[in-house]
Amino acid sequence: MIAIGVDIGGTSIKGASINDKGEILDRFSLKMDKEIEPEISIGKMCDEINKFIKNKKYKSKIIGVGLGVPGILDKEAGIVKSSPNLPKWINFKIADFVQKRVNLRVKIVNDASSAVLGEARFGSGKNYQNIIMITLGTGVGGGIIINGKLYDGLGGTGAQLGHEVIRYNGRQCSCGRKGCLEAYASATAIIKEAKNNLKKYPDSKLNKEDVIDAKVIFELERQGDKLAKKLVKEYVIYLSEGLLDFCNIFRPEIFLLSGGVANEGDYLIKKIVKYMKKKHYGYINAPEIPIKLASLGYDSGKIGAASLLFEQYE
Amino acid sequence: MIAIGVDIGGTSIKGASINDKGEILDRFSLKMDKEIEPEISIGKMCDEINKFIKNKKYKSKIIGVGLGVPGILDKEAGIVKSSPNLPKWINFKIADFVQKRVNLRVKIVNDASSAVLGEARFGSGKNYQNIIMITLGTGVGGGIIINGKLYDGLGGTGAQLGHEVIRYNGRQCSCGRKGCLEAYASATAIIKEAKNNLKKYPDSKLNKEDVIDAKVIFELERQGDKLAKKLVKEYVIYLSEGLLDFCNIFRPEIFLLSGGVANEGDYLIKKIVKYMKKKHYGYINAPEIPIKLASLGYDSGKIGAASLLFEQYE
Repeated sequence: MIAIGVDIGGTSIKGASINDKGEILDRFSLKMDKEIEPEISIGKMCDEINKFIKNKKYKSKIIGVGLGVPGILDKEAGIVKSSPNLPKWINFKIADFVQKRVNLRVKIVNDASSAVLGEARFGSGKNYQNIIMITLGTGVGGGIIINGKLYDGLGGTGAQLGHEVIRYNGRQCSCGRKGCLEAYASATAIIKEAKNNLKKYPDSKLNKEDVIDAKVIFELERQGDKLAKKLVKEYVIYLSEGLLDFCNIFRPEIFLLSGGVANEGDYLIKKIVKYMKKKHYGYINAPEIPIKLASLGYDSGKIGAASLLFEQYE
Repeated sequence: MIAIGVDIGGTSIKGASINDKGEILDRFSLKMDKEIEPEISIGKMCDEINKFIKNKKYKSKIIGVGLGVPGILDKEAGIVKSSPNLPKWINFKIADFVQKRVNLRVKIVNDASSAVLGEARFGSGKNYQNIIMITLGTGVGGGIIINGKLYDGLGGTGAQLGHEVIRYNGRQCSCGRKGCLEAYASATAIIKEAKNNLKKYPDSKLNKEDVIDAKVIFELERQGDKLAKKLVKEYVIYLSEGLLDFCNIFRPEIFLLSGGVANEGDYLIKKIVKYMKKKHYGYINAPEIPIKLASLGYDSGKIGAASLLFEQYE
């Protein structure tokens, strides 16, 4: 059993053929123009998929296409209602559109949810029934697995774990509210804080960097750079406060971290665990929740989207 | 099919015989001493239950006892690991203890979860599969129903929805952290704020009240009292911010409100809805989530606890 899993992003569309062990067989990708009509960009994607599967030996084993899509969806109806990063995508019936052009069953899911599905089925979350995944990238994404199943709320619009306010009236968030976790724990947030503080810390080596990203900030923090230390310290506090909230709200079996900042790996996790222990994982006597890195990297979304097709046969 | 549902609180234990339509047949209650050994207080409860069922005509139809217990539980093992309000309850094997004395099957659940179970099975949540319930009382309790089932996290220690931080480093919370929703949206919180502001508002009629509670504050707010208006305005903002967080995290089909402050009913709900609409229910184009009052009142916990016994026959 094989499915096509596709990750639709603002700058590229990446897909792969994936078997029901979660293994990637072959890949394809194309550029995405987020400003054009979805019929054009997704039309091109369909052409690419048709070309991709045309001469594959396993063509007859392909049971469908799973799409991970950013935005607010009506999953059952296969519609993208709107998408902050894809302004022309309004009530786009993507599942029908793709089904007609590639003649395969199509399922859709929010892109953050497809990532947690991938990790839950075939990655770091494989042996757990209740998982909270946090993606620390441009934004802060979330994924929820409860009793072994994806939970993403009405029409796939829940699990927006980056959009819980941890500081009322705090930093402006991209969602319109102020003080969301995303405004403190995304890669974008730590970079912005770095830039805002450069003048206050003229001795910081960050002033000499052409490009400031989370990796550079963590590197300089290890070297003792004062600004970098302040940034990482605050970052860890806010991220940990968010995780403590999710301890109290979900008390899952495990947290998974993914995304750019999570590449700091155990170094970051140790700092978070230290902070969370100090706060008794939410309250005294509460069970400790282990934190692990997601293991599928950028493939988690494709694999999770493909897994939507396998689920009906389980 | 009939079960005994019991709500164990810090000052009283209230129970009832309940049929599988969620109807209360008969009631009993006894005082609770929270400072004594659980073997003594729960021993008395068992005597009371035995007395209660002794001469009931439907005695043979009673299939078990469901207990709603405050604290951190190991539900499967039937153990109360600890309970902030019951200091001597440490690793108390309550299910075994009660089972031996009343000779009926015993199930336990966190008290906040028993309330949402009751509402979900037989109250305002009856026709919904995904429900978030918030109890606005001494503290702020939470209950989560996902895909029709109770979700309460590892050992029943999740769904602590009052313990998400909405204001980092804000008001001291009973749980040890600072800035939790509970410290802003509980009845205790609005009363404390009232008392802290009495001197600043010498003209406020609250200065003349013997007992300040949420009801009095809302009454005076309707009369235009400046301090009461300020208190209610802030209360609505913080509670709404919490609900917006739960919109983004869960995007449930419905919110249910219960507890003392929820007695303000539609008057309170209208204010919350107005605020949440202004914030687009979390973000633009997100589905609106209706807010309803819980309908079973103080019986929800007993009914939910009893329903634990019916579930195995569903």
